[in-house]
This record gives sequence, structure tokens and C-alpha cells, in this order.
Amino acid sequence: MKFSIDRELLQQTLVDVSKGLSDKKPLPVLTGIKIEATDESLIFTTTNKEISVQITLNAGDNVIIEETGYCVVPGKYFVEIAKKIEGKLVDFTVFEEKTIKIVSERSDFTLIAYDKEFFPSVNFDSKNEPISFESKSLKQLIRQTAFAAATSESRIILTSVNFAILKQMVIVTATDSFRLARKEQEIETGYSKTIVNIPSKSLEELGKILDDSSDSVNMYLIDKTILFKYKNISFLTRLVEGNYPDTSSLFPKEKMLSIKFKKADIVAAVDRASLFTNSDNLSVVKFNVSASKTIEISSNSTEIGKVVEEVEALEISSNFPFQTAFSTKYLNDALRAIDDSIIEINFTGEIKPAVIKGEKTPELTQLLLPVRVF
Amino acid sequence: MKFSIDRELLQQTLVDVSKGLSDKKPLPVLTGIKIEATDESLIFTTTNKEISVQITLNAGDNVIIEETGYCVVPGKYFVEIAKKIEGKLVDFTVFEEKTIKIVSERSDFTLIAYDKEFFPSVNFDSKNEPISFESKSLKQLIRQTAFAAATSESRIILTSVNFAILKQMVIVTATDSFRLARKEQEIETGYSKTIVNIPSKSLEELGKILDDSSDSVNMYLIDKTILFKYKNISFLTRLVEGNYPDTSSLFPKEKMLSIKFKKADIVAAVDRASLFTNSDNLSVVKFNVSASKTIEISSNSTEIGKVVEEVEALEISSNFPFQTAFSTKYLNDALRAIDDSIIEINFTGEIKPAVIKGEKTPELTQLLLPVRVF
Repeated sequence: MKFSIDRELLQQTLVDVSKGLSDKKPLPVLTGIKIEATDESLIFTTTNKEISVQITLNAGDNVIIEETGYCVVPGKYFVEIAKKIEGKLVDFTVFEEKTIKIVSERSDFTLIAYDKEFFPSVNFDSKNEPISFESKSLKQLIRQTAFAAATSESRIILTSVNFAILKQMVIVTATDSFRLARKEQEIETGYSKTIVNIPSKSLEELGKILDDSSDSVNMYLIDKTILFKYKNISFLTRLVEGNYPDTSSLFPKEKMLSIKFKKADIVAAVDRASLFTNSDNLSVVKFNVSASKTIEISSNSTEIGKVVEEVEALEISSNFPFQTAFSTKYLNDALRAIDDSIIEINFTGEIKPAVIKGEKTPELTQLLLPVRVF
Repeated sequence: MKFSIDRELLQQTLVDVSKGLSDKKPLPVLTGIKIEATDESLIFTTTNKEISVQITLNAGDNVIIEETGYCVVPGKYFVEIAKKIEGKLVDFTVFEEKTIKIVSERSDFTLIAYDKEFFPSVNFDSKNEPISFESKSLKQLIRQTAFAAATSESRIILTSVNFAILKQMVIVTATDSFRLARKEQEIETGYSKTIVNIPSKSLEELGKILDDSSDSVNMYLIDKTILFKYKNISFLTRLVEGNYPDTSSLFPKEKMLSIKFKKADIVAAVDRASLFTNSDNLSVVKFNVSASKTIEISSNSTEIGKVVEEVEALEISSNFPFQTAFSTKYLNDALRAIDDSIIEINFTGEIKPAVIKGEKTPELTQLLLPVRVF
């Protein structure tokens, strides 16, 4: 097996394909990248128990295949080598199925190949009709929702992001039961009713591969997995089984107090107000609304002291006094997920969730349960 | 006590004075910054067991003193507050000796003052004649030598940097017994024979305060401490007691093989050659000199593989075959400390130290003991 490849193309390919690398020792072969050279193309494959990635490069000026074959190369080291080598072309040769030579300019690397027979076969075939997204919209959708999923595995279903697809609309929901992110988005191609729970970590890895471009990302449902096809990249992830909880009852119907802020003002004020943490080492900020447009955002610690920030609201729906408090981290996450210069917070009660939305982006809703500190 | 101060001036002052902050809990008052307001000036002081810093700001347009007095403010939080607040002026007021209010634009911080009676008094008086350095030369001198001092405290004297001053020359030496950095430098003002051992960590903190400017830094010897005065900053550090070992015998007298490299070439080659670490998790690079100007720099790991880099020498003194090996980290540290585009390595034997110098900077010598791997 022997090929030459443009260095920059190799670097980008390895960064993308390494999203499916295992970093765990028990199955060493999964820490490797399978590379297959055929007459027409070079195929890079990785797989761990969650994610599998395959990237196909067609033979041409940047990919010159001299001898077909396949091998499994230690992933981490190959990625590091590709980052540090110089020169335009990288030569890759496998000797006697066990020694890999990587040569570029005056650098000569020898790697010991993994036993290729142990590399599992992964099926990236797509048969049924895809659901189509625009790359930049899907990237944004992931950034705006996946963070709200649970990281603790105590309720495994909450570590996933729920995609509910009906016709040309997808409703995406993520929650860890203290906060929730939900986005409604139109999709390019219609589809019959489908509900899938995609691990939030898989989505975050996919988000790193996607560009802010208008290129299409096609999503295929295959048994208990989901396959994304983007340019020359196939990204397969397992799904989380089970029923995602019904979250519709969490959305408050009543309105109580609605305040509009400039996003920059409230983000800066919350940032400063969170300098002191409470005795549990949790940072909590309080909102204090009085009979004016000046909202007080504050925090205090008996040991250190107190911060009071005044933020001028752009609009306020009523002027009765009201107090509530939020986890600073959760509030920050929600505010930063909203790509809008004006943010509206709807408070529905001291112990009921607040609804946070951008003025011009009603399709995205962030729900936040208050913290009881009074 | 009450004053107003320009925000940017406050930020810079706090960053510099915090070099003397303690991060340890046992003596909480040492995690504080003492601020004294007199009619003429504002004086910031920190002290821990190693370093004390004092910065004096004269009253004027940027520093408006309304009421004299002094207090000790929690250091870490005040630094964080100064970084995050907005507005041009910051108002600082102490109420009843125990509550500190820091107000800027629409932010209002309340901090609980430390008990000021417990703050130790530090003497920053300078009586005797100083030794003068140019700020940028002293900053460079620290960067080129202090890294070679020991970090382990098993031989405490080696955690210091030795300054041997005679007339208008200072010889600075740092070694951890595996490598050594030595620089000879002229100083602005002459001085009688003086030898001091300054903790390398103190010098590194001082280096962060110094600018790349031509301003003078005056160094005063006071009992078992050394005081640096730079602009409006006084920086006091304890010295390490004891006799610094005589290192003159370490400098090889014989010459064996001398090779000149472009610095950029050898730094890049060593960087790539160090991708694989050996079984002890130590990265070691081998030099292989044969009968040509092409030098081989390589490393190998039985588990992962091998790297061979070829570097073209600019000059080579003899052409008999020679092999040696170095710790990659130590070699990298030495090469990066040399501000010269051409580097000369003098090998004096397989188990004798190599002497590394810049072609045009003979005043700086880096010694490196080989690692035995053959």
C-alpha cells in the first residue's frame, strides 16, 4: 500500500476523522485510523462505541495512489505528525503489513501498524430518503441546544437531544431537568413523522466538523443509528433508546412579567455579578425588579461581600416588585445561545421557569428554573 | 478612607502588585492587598514569605484622594473586579474600617475588609548604592537563565540563580545539575564584589513586571534580601542562603566537534523528533553525525515507532562519526533561550556536556549533559 497526499488536505481530513477515535486503551485498534487505498480513492475510517466517521478522498492531483491496500495507523500520533510536518506532499507507505513510513521533506516517521484484522467493519450505506439541513443552520442548532442536555448519566435519556420531525419541521429539545433548550426549524426536505434521541456529545463532535456554509447535510435513519452525510464525510452515531419525556407541560402558559434587555448589557452585568460564589461554590445571581426600568442584578457571599449591578431595561411589561434567582452558569449558557441583540425574559413566578427568547428569533426558546435563595 | 482612580491605571497596578500575593490560606491577610491613602499618594503593598511588592501612585488627575487612611482588601477578588468593571473612574471607599465599596458606572461591589492590624510591615527603604540594569536587559537575562534552576527542593541552593557581581560585570548562573545557563553581562553602575542567590521563582515574577524598555532597574542588597526598584515599583525578595556550588569546572576545556545550525531548522527538527516518548515517558532525541553536513536527529519508541529528521548543518568542524542524545525538553529550553538566528553546538564527548551558544551572543552559554541511551 502506497500513496502521496497534499499535506493540508491530510491535516484537515485527520482532524475531521479523529472525531470518531477512541481514547480508551481496552480496545487499542479503536485508537487507530483505518486507511484504505483503492484505485479510485483513499478512505479514512474511525469508530468508537458512539461515533464512526468515514472520509473519502478521490484520487487526483492532491491524492496519488500508487499501490492499493489497507492498514490501521495509530490515530493520535498520525494526527500529531500531520500537524508538525512541513513540505507540500506527504508520502505514506506500508511495508510488510506492519511498518508504516510517513515521509515529508526531510522528516521520516516510522509507525508500527495495528493489526488490521481487528478493526470492526462499519456500514455507512444510506438507503432511505434523507432529511436535509443546511450546514450552517445545523451547526447553529447544535450550538443553541446540545449544551442543555444532561452530562450526568443518571437518566441516560436526558444525555440525548430529542429530534421530533414532522413534514418540513423539526423540533429539537434538550434538557437536564433544570433548564431546557428548544428550537423549531424548517428543513429542506419533508419527511414522515420520526422521533430520534441523538447523544448530545455526538452532536457536539458533528458540530465541529460542519462549516458555516450553505452546503447540505443529509441525515439518514438506519436501525438504531443515525447517519449524517456532509460533503465527502459520513458521520454515524448510535441513538439513545427509550422515550424522551414529554416537555410540553413545562412551557408556562401564563404571563407575569416580561422584560427586554440589550443582550450586551445583561451579559456583562451577569458576568460581573457572578464574581462571588456562594458557600456551596455555586454562583447564583438574583434579579430584583422594582417600580422602575432599572433592574438590579446581584449576588452575595457572607465571606467575601456583595455585587450589585444596575441594568437598564428596554421595556418592562408591569411594574410590581419581583425577585428571583438563577444559576449563573445556566443563565449565561442560555443568553449566549441566543443570536439576537435584544433578549426578552418572561418571568412566570418565583419558582416557575423563566422563558428566555431573542426578540427576532422566536423559534428558539430557553427555559430556566429559578434557584430558591430567598 | 476614600479615593477615585483611573480604571486602566488600577488594573495595571493590581496586576503588578499581585505578584507578591500569597495564595495560601493559613495566613489570610497575606492574600490581601494593603492600600494606604496619604495626602500625596496611594500606596499598594503585598507580601508573602518570598516576595513583597509596593507600588506608589502620586495623587493627580488619575488618582484623586478624598480621605486618607489604610485598609487591606481581598486581593484575588479586587484583581477580578478591576478586570471586569467598565467606566473610566473607579471609586473606592472604606466604611467603618470593615466594609469596602468599589463603584464604577452601574456596578457596585461591597467587599469585607481584612483586619488591617495583622498585615506585616515591610521595609522597602534603600540606603546603599544600587547595581543598575536596563529593564529590557534584565528581563532578557531572567528569561535566558532562570528556567535552568532546579524546581525540586532537594538541594535548595539550586532553586536559586547565582548573581556574581564584580565591578561593571555580573555573571549569572542557574543549574539543576543536568543543565546549566550562564550569562555575563555588563551593568550600568560598578559595584564591589558581591555574590547573591536569588530564588528563580522570584526572578520570574519580577520578569513579568519589567517592560522591554530602557528604563533603569536598581538592585539593592539589604541584609538577607534584595530589593529591585523600577519606576514606581519596589520588588523585594528573600535570598537563598548558603554557598552556590563552583560550576567553573563544568565548562569543558577541550573541543571535539562543533556544528553550526540555523536556529529555525534545528528547533523545528527537534520539535518533530520529540513526538514519540520513550518507555519512561521521557522524550529523548539522538544526534547522529556522519561524514557529511547532514545531521540526523531522531527518536524512537519500541511501542510506537521511530522519527528521523535530517538537518543540514551550516558548518561542521570535523567529520568523524559521533552519536549523543539529550532530553528534548532541556534541549528545547536551551535553544529557545538563545536570541540568535545561528546556533553553535560544541560536543565534547558522549558523556560530557555539550556547549550551546548563539553565533553572535557569546555572553550566553547553555550547558547540557547528554542522556545515555546507546
